[in-house]
Amino acid sequence: MSSISTFPDVMEKLVSLAKRRGFIFQSSEIYGGTGSVWDYGPLGVELKKNLKDRWWNAMVRMRDDVEGLDAAILMHPRVWEASGHVAGFTDPLVDCRNCKRRFRADDPKIKGTPGAPDAQCPACGMKGTLSEPRLFNLMFKTFMGPVEDTASVVYLRPETAQGIFVNFLNVQQSTRQKVPFGIAQIGKAFRNEITPGNFIFRTREFEQMEMQFFVDPAGNHMEWFEYWKAQRMEWHRLLGLREERLQFHQHDPQELAHYARAAFDIQYDFGGSLGFQEVEGVHHRGDFDLGRHQEYSGKKLEYFDQPNNRRYVPFVIETSVGADRTLLALLVNAYREEQVAGEDEGRTVLALHPSLAPVKAGVFPLVKKDGMPEMATRLASELRRHFPVFYDESGAIGRRYRRQDEVGTPYGITIDGQSTADQTVTIRDRDTLQQERIDATRVVEVLRERLAT
Amino acid sequence: MSSISTFPDVMEKLVSLAKRRGFIFQSSEIYGGTGSVWDYGPLGVELKKNLKDRWWNAMVRMRDDVEGLDAAILMHPRVWEASGHVAGFTDPLVDCRNCKRRFRADDPKIKGTPGAPDAQCPACGMKGTLSEPRLFNLMFKTFMGPVEDTASVVYLRPETAQGIFVNFLNVQQSTRQKVPFGIAQIGKAFRNEITPGNFIFRTREFEQMEMQFFVDPAGNHMEWFEYWKAQRMEWHRLLGLREERLQFHQHDPQELAHYARAAFDIQYDFGGSLGFQEVEGVHHRGDFDLGRHQEYSGKKLEYFDQPNNRRYVPFVIETSVGADRTLLALLVNAYREEQVAGEDEGRTVLALHPSLAPVKAGVFPLVKKDGMPEMATRLASELRRHFPVFYDESGAIGRRYRRQDEVGTPYGITIDGQSTADQTVTIRDRDTLQQERIDATRVVEVLRERLAT
Repeated sequence: MSSISTFPDVMEKLVSLAKRRGFIFQSSEIYGGTGSVWDYGPLGVELKKNLKDRWWNAMVRMRDDVEGLDAAILMHPRVWEASGHVAGFTDPLVDCRNCKRRFRADDPKIKGTPGAPDAQCPACGMKGTLSEPRLFNLMFKTFMGPVEDTASVVYLRPETAQGIFVNFLNVQQSTRQKVPFGIAQIGKAFRNEITPGNFIFRTREFEQMEMQFFVDPAGNHMEWFEYWKAQRMEWHRLLGLREERLQFHQHDPQELAHYARAAFDIQYDFGGSLGFQEVEGVHHRGDFDLGRHQEYSGKKLEYFDQPNNRRYVPFVIETSVGADRTLLALLVNAYREEQVAGEDEGRTVLALHPSLAPVKAGVFPLVKKDGMPEMATRLASELRRHFPVFYDESGAIGRRYRRQDEVGTPYGITIDGQSTADQTVTIRDRDTLQQERIDATRVVEVLRERLAT
Repeated sequence: MSSISTFPDVMEKLVSLAKRRGFIFQSSEIYGGTGSVWDYGPLGVELKKNLKDRWWNAMVRMRDDVEGLDAAILMHPRVWEASGHVAGFTDPLVDCRNCKRRFRADDPKIKGTPGAPDAQCPACGMKGTLSEPRLFNLMFKTFMGPVEDTASVVYLRPETAQGIFVNFLNVQQSTRQKVPFGIAQIGKAFRNEITPGNFIFRTREFEQMEMQFFVDPAGNHMEWFEYWKAQRMEWHRLLGLREERLQFHQHDPQELAHYARAAFDIQYDFGGSLGFQEVEGVHHRGDFDLGRHQEYSGKKLEYFDQPNNRRYVPFVIETSVGADRTLLALLVNAYREEQVAGEDEGRTVLALHPSLAPVKAGVFPLVKKDGMPEMATRLASELRRHFPVFYDESGAIGRRYRRQDEVGTPYGITIDGQSTADQTVTIRDRDTLQQERIDATRVVEVLRERLAT
């Protein structure tokens, strides 16, 4: 009964649904928007919080070998020299000497080879005005302190990982963890992308969920790499992302970053023109990062293996998820347009995993009289102490169900004529459309059970 | 039995405890640190998450009249013209023409009046070299897109509030909320402070928890102002902040911001030289913000009151908490050094509210033999599915208790010789030091009950 439209149809519909129902708004929209920056609305912020909490629970709270961290966005500028970002985190750009516009050197709208006399500017159309490509750093820079000069430049971090590397010994020593162990972090990162786009897929301000796992370089590090590959793929499956839309993509030697010994992306098939795209990277970074920070800071970043009286710089297995693009994958994955048997109107459903759904239950009096709104309001207040619920008494009941289906609410609780007589309610399942009558006193318990699965 | 040292003693001890036990580290410490920026370590990130979750639950999830939002840090630059930050968010600074250093005009180390011939530079000691005070904007600026010029300047938001104002209609229309209702947000903000300090009290990168409540200007807005004052003070009390260390401070007419009709700060007494300081502001902002954004964007930001067929720009009652300084207040409030009856060594305790404590229970085998570590490890694994717990088998049991007391862990579960025989354990209360023997199968239930209070 379900049909999945292919991208870009689904994407356009999602952008519209996301705005209309309060998942995602264009940032500073009343001022014409901020380029490739988005705001999460009332439902979006709950969906994202649920996603981040699932990651945090799985990666930190339910493990005894991973510690949490929340490092600042503003870091010492030497961090980015050590990491290689100052020298190497660049895109080649060309300038038009006539109209002063800038383009990526590989912009398909440029006719000819930039720098050559016959190359044509895609903006003003002039020939021979395009410069040779020059490297442009993608880090946002700002100035700390009262003077704006080169000594006061700091960057907005382009990734959260470096906050973990520079705190490696602080975390290890304060927690007394022994290698192998990991450090996990959720936080904002910023990249001044030249060609961002595809809604929240590639944005200039985004959120990462990263974990660096420190292992003995003389030990079974490739086994840990395989372990984390499997763990992370399983995590995406448990979110409800469909098996056939998930795959590993192995970086071939040309693709492999200079610091990486092995790298796999977990890709999700967004459909249409976007197709399979990375939602997470699982990378074997060797001792590149800790080694560089040792070199640039002059501080030892060695682990002391007491039983064996050895000191070494651990290898790092990294798992790095984009929270925003995983959220987009969840929306694409969940979106369905359906015909419902016996109804004229179709419905739009977001079949989100109940644990991720922003609202857990709608509470509806069948009609606005005979004590039903009072009983429903009381029930909604009670439920709200445990879960986000939405009370709705306006319009036909079918329309109220469909409004909740469209935002992914997994359960609908209806108070009808029988309810006020015998203190029972019906509970409707978003996906099966089955309704079941239960005692009103059991609603919290039944919802809790179903949400826990 | 408890004695509270006064600030600055407590603050110095807290800075040291926070680093040693993994609450808070200096940012980029291996590079000599980043000025007034701090990283939250494994215990700090949990404490902060618990604090933010308490606020989010109280302000958003348990209410039906407040919606959540997560707006981006990078906003359209016109936002800050409308808000008044471009023109007015400044500190007066003076330059020394000799040594090129900058100072706040009110720096107590400056001798004489800046600009006057006898004024003396506090750095190089020269006379008559200090400039007249000039205004310096406290917003961090950066450039979006490939060209660094005035047209591409964007700012790191100095407050989260404006993200709420510019999204007022997006949120109202997508949720169908009716005035009065609120919008709440947790997020980072940045201020290029000239004299930050006092640990995490005033930092350049910090986190706010803000709520803007929209009310009818022709209605009972002063009652709503009083309502939120009372609600917010009660929230701080429920965190465990001591009654006698909390007070309201009313802004007098000179103190009142240009946009405010009335303003109260909720202050906490940090002790010593810091004394009573603001942790939250409750401000009546009138229609200043929405009015300015209407003017600068050219877009109507009016609410349509359908039953009365009226359109108006709502008044705003704002509640704005600093997450970091509330966390500091919690640490100051919780810190105790005690002598324990019958023990030679004293103990340090963080008497944090159990719902805020980073670790909920320590799990300890009394000795490392006779099956106790096995039973304790099993129990710790089971508990970890529900709460953050810490397993510790190393050292004397008294020392293990004290290590957990020092980080605020409210309960200690000990597996002793009797445990392996009859499947019971003891549960020790951090504050009363009372121990009680319960069935091992009941630990989850008992902890859940005690943590819920």
